Amino acid sequence: MTGSRKKSLRDRIAVEEPLEIRLNGKSVAVVMRSPGNDEDLACGFLLTEGLLKGKDELQSVGRHRDRRKPDHGNVVDVVSTDGSALDKRGWQRNFVSASSCGLCGKLTIESVRLQAPPIRNDDLKVSPALLYGLVDKMRAGQAGFEETGGIHAAGLFDRDGNLLILREDIGRHNAVDKVVGAALREDAFPLAGRILVVSGRSSFEIVQKALMARIPFVAAVSAASSLAVELAESSRMALVGFLRGNSMNVYCGAERIA
Amino acid sequence: MTGSRKKSLRDRIAVEEPLEIRLNGKSVAVVMRSPGNDEDLACGFLLTEGLLKGKDELQSVGRHRDRRKPDHGNVVDVVSTDGSALDKRGWQRNFVSASSCGLCGKLTIESVRLQAPPIRNDDLKVSPALLYGLVDKMRAGQAGFEETGGIHAAGLFDRDGNLLILREDIGRHNAVDKVVGAALREDAFPLAGRILVVSGRSSFEIVQKALMARIPFVAAVSAASSLAVELAESSRMALVGFLRGNSMNVYCGAERIA
Repeated sequence: MTGSRKKSLRDRIAVEEPLEIRLNGKSVAVVMRSPGNDEDLACGFLLTEGLLKGKDELQSVGRHRDRRKPDHGNVVDVVSTDGSALDKRGWQRNFVSASSCGLCGKLTIESVRLQAPPIRNDDLKVSPALLYGLVDKMRAGQAGFEETGGIHAAGLFDRDGNLLILREDIGRHNAVDKVVGAALREDAFPLAGRILVVSGRSSFEIVQKALMARIPFVAAVSAASSLAVELAESSRMALVGFLRGNSMNVYCGAERIA
Repeated sequence: MTGSRKKSLRDRIAVEEPLEIRLNGKSVAVVMRSPGNDEDLACGFLLTEGLLKGKDELQSVGRHRDRRKPDHGNVVDVVSTDGSALDKRGWQRNFVSASSCGLCGKLTIESVRLQAPPIRNDDLKVSPALLYGLVDKMRAGQAGFEETGGIHAAGLFDRDGNLLILREDIGRHNAVDKVVGAALREDAFPLAGRILVVSGRSSFEIVQKALMARIPFVAAVSAASSLAVELAESSRMALVGFLRGNSMNVYCGAERIA
C-alpha cells in the first residue's frame, strides 16, 4: 500500500520454520531458521556450542529418517564419535545455572573462556581497502535479501578478500552457524587467517561463535554490543562495526589492520 | 576509520548483559539484554511465555536481594500467586520435546494456539495515514538508537496514534517484552484496540508475544517471516511490514485498515 492506494502483490516472504537438532539420538535444540543448508546449521551449531570438537568427531549428519512421522525434514540427526558430549553439556548447563546468582558479563565471558582460550599465533593482518570491499562481495552473492528484505548473511573470507563460504538465514546467528558448519563439513578447518563478515549487528553470541570456530576477525555492517567488544578484546580478536562504503568503526584488534 | 585515516573516538556502544529471570524462586531463563526496565522485561517475558496470566497473579517483582553475591542486580525475582505456574510450564516443555519429531510450522502454531486463541471481538480499525505516522513518533522518543545505532525499539500505540509506552533493547523480542511488562505493571491491560510497532523484522516470536498479550495489530519497519504471517492470519491479527514513509506491506488483516 502506498498512501491510500492499495496494490495486491505476491510478496516473496522469508520462510521461517523450526529445526530440531539431535546429537546421538538426543534432542539438543529447536531453532527457528530459514530452511536450507540444515546439515551445515546443525554441525555449526554443535561446534559453536562446544558439543562437537571438529571433523574428526563428526561421524554422520543427515535428515531424520523416520518417514512415518510428518516433517521428518525438519529434524537433523548428527552422530558424533564422542558419545559423552551431551553429558558434558548437561554438566555445563547445571554449572551455569548453579552460578547464575553471580551472573554478570565478566562471568559470562569466563564461562566462554572455559571452552575457548584467546586466539594466539594468528598473524592475520589486512588493509582497510580490502575490508571496505567485503560487504559488496557478500551482497553480490546474496539472493535472499534482495527478494525478501528479511534475510541475514554471513560470509567467510580469506586474507586476500576471496569469499570462501556464504550462507543466509532469517537469524544472524544461524547464518554464522551455517558458515561454520559448511567449513567443518568441507574440511576447511582450521579457520586461522579468515575473516567473518555478518550483516546487521555483532552481539556477544556472534563473537562467541566466531571464537569457538577460532576465527580471528569479525566485521559487521552494523553496531557491536559492549559484551561483544569485551569478549573480542580479551580473546585477541579484531572486531569491526559499521563497515559501510569506505569507513568503519574498529572496536578492538586494530593491530590486525595494516 | 575513514579510508585509511584513523580517528580515535569514544563511540557509545550499546550495553549488553545477561539477566536471570526467576519465578517463585526458580530460575526460568537467562536473557541477553540492554540493562534498564528489567522488571518490565521479567514481567513481560513471563506473560508472553504463558507463565503469568495477568496483573492479578503478580504478587511482587524486584531485584534479587542477596547482596552477599555479586551482580544481584542482574537477577530479577518475580513472585506470582500461582505457585504451580512453573510445573505447568515444565509439562509444556516436555510436551514440545515429545512431539518434536512431528515438528513443523503448523504444529508450532498449534502449540501457541493451546495458550492463546485467535483474537475476536476487537473492532480496531485505523487509517493508513495514522499508521504512516507511527514510526516517526517512535523514533522521536528513542534515545538509544541515535547514540549507538544498535538498539531496537517497540512502541505501544492507541487507536488514535498516541504513543503509550516505548521501550528499547538490543533485542527486538526483549523490547516487546519490556513494553508488555510495563503495560502489565501499569495496569494498562487489556490491550485490545492497541497497535504494537517494532523496529526491524517481525518474526514468529514477535507475533507470538503480541498474541499472548492480546494485541490485535503488529506493524514492523522491516519484513515479516512466513511463520509470522501464518500465525497472525490464523489469529485474526493485522500484520504490516516495511512501514516506511507513506507506504507499507499489509501481510494480513487488511480489514483492520480503513
